[in-house]
Amino acid sequence: MDYQQQALDQHKKLKGKIAIAVKDQLDSRDKLSLYYTPGVAAVSSYVAQHEDETRDYTWLNNNVAVISDGSAVLGLGNIGPYGALPVMEGKAMIFKSFANIDAIPIVLSVHSADEIVAAVTAIAPSFGGINLEDIAAPICFEVEDRLKAGLSIPIMHDDQHGTAIVVLAGLINAMKLTGRDLKNCRVVVVGAGAAGTAIIKLLHKYAEPEILAVDSTGIIAKGRTDLNPAKQALLEITNKNSVEGSLEDAITQADVFIGVSKAGLLTPPMVRSMAKDPIIFAMANPSPEIMPDAAKAAGAKIVATGRSDFPNQVNNALVFPGIFRGALDNRVSQITDDHKIAVAKAVAALVEQPDDDNIIPQALDKRLVPAVARVIT
Amino acid sequence: MDYQQQALDQHKKLKGKIAIAVKDQLDSRDKLSLYYTPGVAAVSSYVAQHEDETRDYTWLNNNVAVISDGSAVLGLGNIGPYGALPVMEGKAMIFKSFANIDAIPIVLSVHSADEIVAAVTAIAPSFGGINLEDIAAPICFEVEDRLKAGLSIPIMHDDQHGTAIVVLAGLINAMKLTGRDLKNCRVVVVGAGAAGTAIIKLLHKYAEPEILAVDSTGIIAKGRTDLNPAKQALLEITNKNSVEGSLEDAITQADVFIGVSKAGLLTPPMVRSMAKDPIIFAMANPSPEIMPDAAKAAGAKIVATGRSDFPNQVNNALVFPGIFRGALDNRVSQITDDHKIAVAKAVAALVEQPDDDNIIPQALDKRLVPAVARVIT
Repeated sequence: MDYQQQALDQHKKLKGKIAIAVKDQLDSRDKLSLYYTPGVAAVSSYVAQHEDETRDYTWLNNNVAVISDGSAVLGLGNIGPYGALPVMEGKAMIFKSFANIDAIPIVLSVHSADEIVAAVTAIAPSFGGINLEDIAAPICFEVEDRLKAGLSIPIMHDDQHGTAIVVLAGLINAMKLTGRDLKNCRVVVVGAGAAGTAIIKLLHKYAEPEILAVDSTGIIAKGRTDLNPAKQALLEITNKNSVEGSLEDAITQADVFIGVSKAGLLTPPMVRSMAKDPIIFAMANPSPEIMPDAAKAAGAKIVATGRSDFPNQVNNALVFPGIFRGALDNRVSQITDDHKIAVAKAVAALVEQPDDDNIIPQALDKRLVPAVARVIT
Repeated sequence: MDYQQQALDQHKKLKGKIAIAVKDQLDSRDKLSLYYTPGVAAVSSYVAQHEDETRDYTWLNNNVAVISDGSAVLGLGNIGPYGALPVMEGKAMIFKSFANIDAIPIVLSVHSADEIVAAVTAIAPSFGGINLEDIAAPICFEVEDRLKAGLSIPIMHDDQHGTAIVVLAGLINAMKLTGRDLKNCRVVVVGAGAAGTAIIKLLHKYAEPEILAVDSTGIIAKGRTDLNPAKQALLEITNKNSVEGSLEDAITQADVFIGVSKAGLLTPPMVRSMAKDPIIFAMANPSPEIMPDAAKAAGAKIVATGRSDFPNQVNNALVFPGIFRGALDNRVSQITDDHKIAVAKAVAALVEQPDDDNIIPQALDKRLVPAVARVIT
């Protein structure tokens, strides 16, 4: 199905996918006096003196900002804040529909780490949580780290951690189906941006498998002189044997391929060079690193992609609504690695009888939000 | 009626007065594909290349940020962003209920002009307009001027201009009722903060009456060495005869008293010293500069206050919803002095048969928004 023209038409018809709703009608002078002046003065005075109770008297208990500078939107790249806004509104729709969270799209005209951190910090008292979205690597790492250190509300860069959690959930079931233990696996991660970096960190935290990270230049290795600090840091948890070379070199005898890179990067001969029953997560959008039928023909046992029209869709929407639902309800101010692993396990466990084409739940599965929220404590 | 406990109880019960609503249900995989990936990519690509059409595909065409740093909230002073939030949510309720505008409360943890301008500029692509609120003078003047110069969406500091417009609307009818012409009047404005300054500027623009501005030290006059630049600038349009002295000196033989200052400042003897049939706008909140019954007993012909429990309530809510409705619908990017005067005339004209207790429409008058929006072109 071609969604392009239909999506343009439908967005133009609706003129935006979200709106503000009021919780009571302002239809009398009494109500104006109650919700606005003079009544609201009592509420303002009270919360000014009891700031931690603000959430009990305002929508802070249920709202989240979805913040992007538009520097890495979907597979479209750096298209700026206006281009980002339809995606952030879509995310707000998902937050509301799946988890009843009031999400507000905030798109930024600034792009340096200092400016993004300053802007988000300035507006942070407006929100109960912050979902960072579509901010390019490596700036996204610094932005998230500094905001988490400086603010006392839950903050998560979904492109990193949402993706990493769903990948781990899928891998947990893929391990069962292929009789593997992740800690003994050789994993190749292609793409060392936001998602790739977070996947590597989470897999390392979960099971310390042998990981090779590959970027557009080749295997990330000590000998490379072109690595930014974020990629250099990956050497602490990848490539212990200091292997150099290309994706072709990395993939030989690997158990797991995880791609967050470019269409067509993984060829059938590469798949044939992998270990028996290889596991392929080809998540480049909109076209994967290898098409599922080609991967299967080359011997892949399990194939996951980012697309809804193939089996095993790795979709952040499986986890971000529940993570923020749990954080808001349980007053959790930091989403930790332990939370991420607990969420991955909870998501994997929802697939009662995994098979090769069924390692990850569907995004519309209504069990997801409560199952995920429950472990954010 | 005592709203204090009732307001606290009701706010705690509702846990916030606004929420996000979705314009369609995300209840199928097709809709996810249409509103989120992959469909939204076509919309994002399109608006990234046609930024001025973003409003046709997103909620930009109908949303406004209500932004405060909490430095001058109601009569409560500098109570910070959390204290400000219930007021901003109340304002968002009014925007939605009166003008169907989606208003988003944004409260800031920063308070210098540079930081406020930087933060608001950074998030500006998220909104179709910006209502500044409860920011203390004199910083509010610089913030508004710099934002208006730097951004291409409508921006209005409501404490200044909303108040000034409603005062002018009331004065237009008060002039009729007392057979006066504003250009021949002596006007005393007490309080030279955000509202007082804007009132002085708008009255000067409208009719160039003789104006004396009075602050807590006395009449603003050339000889004063304690004036900040904003107050010094008022000398260009007030106090042409370089009168020095107190409020008592200023008020003698004045036609109009306009107070945006402190409870009880205007005494009955002062009212008796004014010209015949004096006009009193005593708008200090929650207690006016003089109570209406005391003012009337001392000879006041017309008395207006900021309160809903007395006649002639000067309430910003009469104009800000319609101003932004008009600006959004008519794609007006600057609210000018001419707009403000046109709005004041339109509001005054809605009172078909003015009398002393009926110079200003009620906030709930459904004719207001269309009448005001119509003149923002």
